Amino acid sequence: MSADVDPQFDDLEAAARRIEPYVRRTPVLSSPELSRTLGAGVEFKCENLQAAGAFKSRGACNAVFALDAAAAAHGVATHSSGNHAAALARAARLRGIPSYIVMPRGAARIKRAAVEAYGGRITECEPSLAARESAAAELVLRSGATLVHPYDDPWVIAGQGTIVLELAVQVAAPELVLVPVGGGGLLAGTALACRRLWPQALVIGVEPAGADDACRSFHGGELVAQRDPHTIADGLRGALSARTLRLARANVDDIVTVSEDGIVAAMRLLFDSLKVVVEASAAVPVAALLEGRARATRVAVILTGGNADLDTLPWIPAVR
Amino acid sequence: MSADVDPQFDDLEAAARRIEPYVRRTPVLSSPELSRTLGAGVEFKCENLQAAGAFKSRGACNAVFALDAAAAAHGVATHSSGNHAAALARAARLRGIPSYIVMPRGAARIKRAAVEAYGGRITECEPSLAARESAAAELVLRSGATLVHPYDDPWVIAGQGTIVLELAVQVAAPELVLVPVGGGGLLAGTALACRRLWPQALVIGVEPAGADDACRSFHGGELVAQRDPHTIADGLRGALSARTLRLARANVDDIVTVSEDGIVAAMRLLFDSLKVVVEASAAVPVAALLEGRARATRVAVILTGGNADLDTLPWIPAVR
Repeated sequence: MSADVDPQFDDLEAAARRIEPYVRRTPVLSSPELSRTLGAGVEFKCENLQAAGAFKSRGACNAVFALDAAAAAHGVATHSSGNHAAALARAARLRGIPSYIVMPRGAARIKRAAVEAYGGRITECEPSLAARESAAAELVLRSGATLVHPYDDPWVIAGQGTIVLELAVQVAAPELVLVPVGGGGLLAGTALACRRLWPQALVIGVEPAGADDACRSFHGGELVAQRDPHTIADGLRGALSARTLRLARANVDDIVTVSEDGIVAAMRLLFDSLKVVVEASAAVPVAALLEGRARATRVAVILTGGNADLDTLPWIPAVR
Repeated sequence: MSADVDPQFDDLEAAARRIEPYVRRTPVLSSPELSRTLGAGVEFKCENLQAAGAFKSRGACNAVFALDAAAAAHGVATHSSGNHAAALARAARLRGIPSYIVMPRGAARIKRAAVEAYGGRITECEPSLAARESAAAELVLRSGATLVHPYDDPWVIAGQGTIVLELAVQVAAPELVLVPVGGGGLLAGTALACRRLWPQALVIGVEPAGADDACRSFHGGELVAQRDPHTIADGLRGALSARTLRLARANVDDIVTVSEDGIVAAMRLLFDSLKVVVEASAAVPVAALLEGRARATRVAVILTGGNADLDTLPWIPAVR
């Protein structure tokens, strides 16, 4: 595989072998009460319990351990304020190479602390996509590090697809697979795996209505930009790339949107009924079931991350 | 087994077979970061993910399904404001028999709602132990129901002991097993199982310093009453019975206490690092590791329950 080709099913199998020593086999949880509330038998693949608290560890480990020794020696770099940054720093530390992380000034303290805990070297930049991209490009030029994009990268997409390879051993084929959509890397990898392993299953991406670029790009004629996203689901504010849109068009059945109230209600429901900590982005597919945007008798949901800021849960009124 | 004999290891094995269709095989979770923080390799048996959100489902199911048909037809009764009440109501519904639950006036809305959701018939009483016991005795007399005590009951103790039977298949023998102590049913069942399956492991019960009757009874000459308990760990405000004290003396290595600050810090740590929802009572053994009240290289902790009130997490300041 090279950086400009799309990943194939074989690449997912290679990724699963490559990352096996470095990621957790996450459990699948379900609750009869929660299934009743959601009107469907739902099984949750708990990537919120994954190393570094999110599925991003899969793609990051695959990208880092796929590098040849010469390239690896110079380290890896990315621009991200979220789970990919921590996952990449962790993967680099596991391989014993440096990681350079560009983070926007004002990024959440908790996210910064996670990157630092894994030994990532943080460079601050202005909080715009242009500033992030140019700071990362400069870093790559100076250090010789390999840029590992959070989603527009075939090894990252293949790594994310390993979730379904694992899940297919844990549960019977569902009728519907629901995943959140930010940049579309998880959606692309999931759909690629489902087309081979569960060809009868519908694969639907779910996006906050306040950050609906993927829905508009998928249903419209061309790739649209994410303008001024407004959503509590901070992991889903990114936009599809040409590659992830192409892969979604090839393998995904639909992309639907949900409301902010639905996301908060779904997040609370997962804490209450499944007894797990999820971040808002992870609750988005459950909001689609709550709001009737997706329906089936047997559903698999990928719970993507657990890195919620526990000082300010969105259903608890803040002290002024 | 009869109600006035102590359970033996065989009774735990019988309980495991009896309750198998009605309870979940809960996962074991761990986190390298959390182990580093706690200074020990810790594996968590997640009974917070058990049916009805607590290990109490095991003892309740064992007691309900051990009844002969004639006794069962009259139903079961208990006095409890907590997880045992919901677990008993659930077990009774699974067997298709009535359950009568005496709850103190002013019991938490969330606990009441759980009992009602499982079809339990609630009788209110004054919030004193004497009022609860007399209301339950009257109910039993009137209905012919069998009283299932939350912990002073050999079938309940045997049911709780099945946790370790399951855990022993999931993990290697630890050096130390930590469990919270309220009435001592879980501690008695756990220690009984450990003495057979992990004879080298220390078994230590952990109790809030603000409700330290078990610690004083265990180390002193006689059973002392629980006077005026003050702790956030609402599941641990009960007192040992003569039976659970006798079983603890026979099989338990120590009972230690922890502070309220330690309990809140431990609860927060489990949300943050293990990404699971636990109630305060479940965090008590982790507080013992944080506060250095128990030490070992490899530790197993039973996370007892996940029924936290998510409207008021103790580390988030309340809006007045």
